[in-house]
Amino acid sequence: MNISQKIVSVRGTQIGGEQPCICTPIVGASMEQILSETEEVCRKRPDIIEWRADFFKDIYDPQKVLETALAIRKIAGEIPILFTIRSEKEGGNPVPLTETEKIELFTEVCKSRLVDMIDCELLYEEELASLRQVSKEYGIRMIMSYHNFSSTPPKEELVQKMLQAESYGADIAKVAVMPASPQDLLVLFQATQEARSQLSIPLITMSMGGLGVITRLAGWMFGSAVTFAVGQNSSAPGQIPIEDLKEVLHIVQKHMFHG
Amino acid sequence: MNISQKIVSVRGTQIGGEQPCICTPIVGASMEQILSETEEVCRKRPDIIEWRADFFKDIYDPQKVLETALAIRKIAGEIPILFTIRSEKEGGNPVPLTETEKIELFTEVCKSRLVDMIDCELLYEEELASLRQVSKEYGIRMIMSYHNFSSTPPKEELVQKMLQAESYGADIAKVAVMPASPQDLLVLFQATQEARSQLSIPLITMSMGGLGVITRLAGWMFGSAVTFAVGQNSSAPGQIPIEDLKEVLHIVQKHMFHG
Repeated sequence: MNISQKIVSVRGTQIGGEQPCICTPIVGASMEQILSETEEVCRKRPDIIEWRADFFKDIYDPQKVLETALAIRKIAGEIPILFTIRSEKEGGNPVPLTETEKIELFTEVCKSRLVDMIDCELLYEEELASLRQVSKEYGIRMIMSYHNFSSTPPKEELVQKMLQAESYGADIAKVAVMPASPQDLLVLFQATQEARSQLSIPLITMSMGGLGVITRLAGWMFGSAVTFAVGQNSSAPGQIPIEDLKEVLHIVQKHMFHG
Repeated sequence: MNISQKIVSVRGTQIGGEQPCICTPIVGASMEQILSETEEVCRKRPDIIEWRADFFKDIYDPQKVLETALAIRKIAGEIPILFTIRSEKEGGNPVPLTETEKIELFTEVCKSRLVDMIDCELLYEEELASLRQVSKEYGIRMIMSYHNFSSTPPKEELVQKMLQAESYGADIAKVAVMPASPQDLLVLFQATQEARSQLSIPLITMSMGGLGVITRLAGWMFGSAVTFAVGQNSSAPGQIPIEDLKEVLHIVQKHMFHG
């Protein structure tokens, strides 16, 4: 039985409602690149923008991170901002920060309230508790994510990751995996469907790479609340341009709901 | 393990190859309507056209059926023609023919060689044997099909239907079912995937209705060789216009293969 799914509402954007949200990453290295990318991306009207701060060359300097976040906010206006430091192990750019420093930076960013959401990996379990408390205190939504760039684990394992995120207090659970065959796409869809019926928080799931493109287009039917698309630069394999994503969603939904 | 799938080649059109074929139905009632529809549909360059003869008001008259088939052939040129009499029970238009008369008509049509393929339902088992023999003799390909307009049977049953079609000597096995939930779409995809690994003939599968639209767009990834799209009029719920189908296939394949 489906539990009625909690909708996370951020600056008027409903995550986990009927419509999938489109999230567009910002991956510039310098503040200048980041801001010009933000301008370009915001013109394409994504529902969410994700600042992939692991690409920022000054990430070691909290002050510069906050300055940049403020400048992104000024451009983004009411578009919700997701702040992410993806680890090298989970497909991110290498950063000169220890795990403790990362958590400190996340904490600073939460306290600044310049972003609306943060994405933390499920990896480091203990640190998540304190950050969860801070983020709650400052009203910052927390995505807890699992990425696997080499394979698609069994369905049960994927569902387990999402259950774990919920048990750690995540507002949203995210799973991104790499398919090796069409069968793996069905594993991802099935895991999404099952997690959706077991969890009461929104989910974000996808199969990456060229083979996984269909999961970025159709994942919402099985319970994925957000799909990532390219505004100017992609942040993970298989992301397609926001224009193409919108065109396919438009065609599919036109015939699904008014066919 | 995947058995290497036999490709059915009809007038140069490869059914069961890398690319899904698009089949567009013709559902006119009079010869005049049928021919104007054929002209309109052929302009949209489907890979196959299906004459749904159960909509033809003169279907009781074999001579008129053959005359109309000849006229369709003249318009269609080298586009393969599929000749179908869908039964009322499986979603077709009521026709004033007994099962025996239908088989006789199929036999006449095969002998005329005015069409390239026929679609017979898996229902009447005994009659299929003689028709299979005649169709083979005249080089007409035979699709054996199962339709369920009320539900999606369990995966095992769907795979069984396709195995049955192969064991009866079908060139292509077809299954069309009605989904009641997103889960049913996964059942259809999974059945397609499994049947593909077990059978050595091409398959055609789909979930019908608005909910099933994604299976018409993505079924080929899991082993469905043909997808039905609207040229001028639809013949089953959930078919989308050929232009929209081509646009989505173009976007998906662009990013899958050249992303």
